[in-house]
Amino acid sequence: MNARAIRQGSYVAVAGEGAARVMHRCALLARITERQGQILRMFLSPAMEAVHRAMRPWMETAGMTVTVDRVGNLRGLYPAERGDAPRLLIGSHLDTVPNAGAYDGVLGVLMGVALAEGLAGQRLPFAIEVVGFSDEEGTRFGVPFLGSRAVVGELGGELLDCADERGGTVRQALAAFSAAHPEVVGAKLAPGSAAYLEFHIEQGPVLESENRALGIVEGLAGQSRGEAVFRGKAGHAGTTPMNIRRDALAAAAEWMTRVEAIAGQIAGTIATVGKIEAEPGAVNVIPGVARCNVDVRHAEDTMRDAAVSAIFEEAQAIARRRGIAVEARQYHEHPAVQLNTAIVEMAAQAVKRAGYATMRMTSGAGHDAMIMAPHLPAAMIFLRNPGGISHHPDESVAEQDVAAGLHAGLCFLDEFAPYLNEHGGRVSV
Amino acid sequence: MNARAIRQGSYVAVAGEGAARVMHRCALLARITERQGQILRMFLSPAMEAVHRAMRPWMETAGMTVTVDRVGNLRGLYPAERGDAPRLLIGSHLDTVPNAGAYDGVLGVLMGVALAEGLAGQRLPFAIEVVGFSDEEGTRFGVPFLGSRAVVGELGGELLDCADERGGTVRQALAAFSAAHPEVVGAKLAPGSAAYLEFHIEQGPVLESENRALGIVEGLAGQSRGEAVFRGKAGHAGTTPMNIRRDALAAAAEWMTRVEAIAGQIAGTIATVGKIEAEPGAVNVIPGVARCNVDVRHAEDTMRDAAVSAIFEEAQAIARRRGIAVEARQYHEHPAVQLNTAIVEMAAQAVKRAGYATMRMTSGAGHDAMIMAPHLPAAMIFLRNPGGISHHPDESVAEQDVAAGLHAGLCFLDEFAPYLNEHGGRVSV
Repeated sequence: MNARAIRQGSYVAVAGEGAARVMHRCALLARITERQGQILRMFLSPAMEAVHRAMRPWMETAGMTVTVDRVGNLRGLYPAERGDAPRLLIGSHLDTVPNAGAYDGVLGVLMGVALAEGLAGQRLPFAIEVVGFSDEEGTRFGVPFLGSRAVVGELGGELLDCADERGGTVRQALAAFSAAHPEVVGAKLAPGSAAYLEFHIEQGPVLESENRALGIVEGLAGQSRGEAVFRGKAGHAGTTPMNIRRDALAAAAEWMTRVEAIAGQIAGTIATVGKIEAEPGAVNVIPGVARCNVDVRHAEDTMRDAAVSAIFEEAQAIARRRGIAVEARQYHEHPAVQLNTAIVEMAAQAVKRAGYATMRMTSGAGHDAMIMAPHLPAAMIFLRNPGGISHHPDESVAEQDVAAGLHAGLCFLDEFAPYLNEHGGRVSV
Repeated sequence: MNARAIRQGSYVAVAGEGAARVMHRCALLARITERQGQILRMFLSPAMEAVHRAMRPWMETAGMTVTVDRVGNLRGLYPAERGDAPRLLIGSHLDTVPNAGAYDGVLGVLMGVALAEGLAGQRLPFAIEVVGFSDEEGTRFGVPFLGSRAVVGELGGELLDCADERGGTVRQALAAFSAAHPEVVGAKLAPGSAAYLEFHIEQGPVLESENRALGIVEGLAGQSRGEAVFRGKAGHAGTTPMNIRRDALAAAAEWMTRVEAIAGQIAGTIATVGKIEAEPGAVNVIPGVARCNVDVRHAEDTMRDAAVSAIFEEAQAIARRRGIAVEARQYHEHPAVQLNTAIVEMAAQAVKRAGYATMRMTSGAGHDAMIMAPHLPAAMIFLRNPGGISHHPDESVAEQDVAAGLHAGLCFLDEFAPYLNEHGGRVSV
């Protein structure tokens, strides 16, 4: 056995023990909720503070210095060999949607803690900062990523004026939090922050359908949301012959089949009509109005734009051919984010060295890595998500896949010092 | 000028005056409502009695004996030359839907009155009984045709147990009505009743689109109502690739396009999806369930059955191909009714002699003629309905089309004595 083989054997054991601990801790933290009978933890909530209290001793025992920053992010620093060394951030979020599962977000933070524990006090040429972001889901204020936005210096302006359902603003919540917790530290990235790594359940069925434990995220898809409102003419379903109808729902149906077809034609596009309403909506009345919403995502913005244009042009063409009107428009959009090629490649190598087949993928959902990536070289590793079920109490992850992720994480740590030497420890995006 | 030409000239004048009177009376009766700000007259309501009070003097002045029967039908008998002569029924209904127009039903009754007036006291070899049915719409008890059903002896059994929104039954309403009006007469068809003629607005756009004033109804379409519930798998709209989705709404959309196509392929079929619901119905969630209702009508029951089978088979085939489940079933059906060939032909000849191009058609909506036809040779003449708008305050009819209908009605009366001679005055269906 050579040194690498010995180390890999020890990594299997460390990862296996770590995975058992992570699963146990996920189950413990799932009990900390602000709504009886379901999991719900919102930004700056008492439940979130209880999670911090639960995690602090685990992190400190692993050798970390634990702080909470001004926006409620939990931050644990595992020190490097030298005080001025660069640092690797490993993070995800600790907040949840209403009626959440036990793994979305929190799993990634606990895997960061487990990796630090796995080092068993061994010092590396870089520090590790585990971050548990205080808001990714946007459950409380309707805008997501408050935690990571603050870290990269983008929490300001109108975002601070968003109100929760009680009418209080983000600004007010932050002021109250700082007043109640004078020990909070600044939220901004520490000097020397060199890269960001996030573990997260896939929240989709791809890894399961491809029989892979882990996925390497290359980028996060851009998204367009649009609406198409078809306006025809309501009429008696019994007395209006087919050839003189102007049936808004029939037009919408034809369009929905085209939306699906276009997504199939422009590779990598996913398009969904999730919402439809027909008016007046009576069984014996031809619909005069049909309203549909469409959600379009793609890893490349130009491709997404092409798909959105094709989808809206089809709506116009169908309406024209049927002699009805349509208003089709995009009302929301965010661009795609590419993750850093070098660090993504490193994550892929780490997965491979851990003994797992790699699979590159685009995340269709948003994650903290999307906010971090423009500021810090970032990588994400997805864990297989049985049934693709997330944002639901049935959300799950297999312990052996968590072990696979931790094993890959240990290999990633091995590769990170050479990476820093090559890139001079500089922040380069 | 020969005798026929002279008579036609006089018919034009009589029909023109009659049409003006009919329009005026429709406007007057439209003010009699049980709900402020809209037209609503239900079965056995005070508003219906007020309509009877308004119409009685018009009918009596025309030489009719006026009665109200046990189910609240208004009946006016214009006597024949001899007391035992057969009688021609001319009728339609006086009740309305909520927020109704001024012509649906009441126009046909007033045209019957106008035809009797047009005779100016002249006795014919047959009597004319004008009937204003008390319920065709089913607004009060949720079941239609209570008035005409009673006349043909089909108002009994479970129908009498139907309740209105206050919980009172048809049976109770009838008992109270008879108690309050001891003068009511039996509702059944009088001996000698030989045929039924009904004028009605088309409640559809066909005559207008074909540029015809009048239409000859050959039959009333049979109807099927069904439901298709597609059950796929809800999922994240951003993380589920197109090729592994089981999108219930995408399946429903494909099916709706097939419903439309099948209606186009089986001549004379009309099929409508008027109602659709997608669950959970969020813009970023793939619908797991889609529920659609379908309404299918055809003049021939075998053709309707074929269309319904094809529509449900398509639902199964689409679901199978997409790996999802579907429950597709018919939950309501009534068969088509053919009107009497001889009397329909007579109506067509009458329209032609009045100088109008004829057009044969099937009624997609139900009418009192549908109930009468199995018991009495029946014909219907449709009047052009601008915009095809009915069951709505914008419902309208042109005075000149009413004049056309009255002119055709006078010609019909001319033809009816020869018809009776040929058919021996017997009731034959």
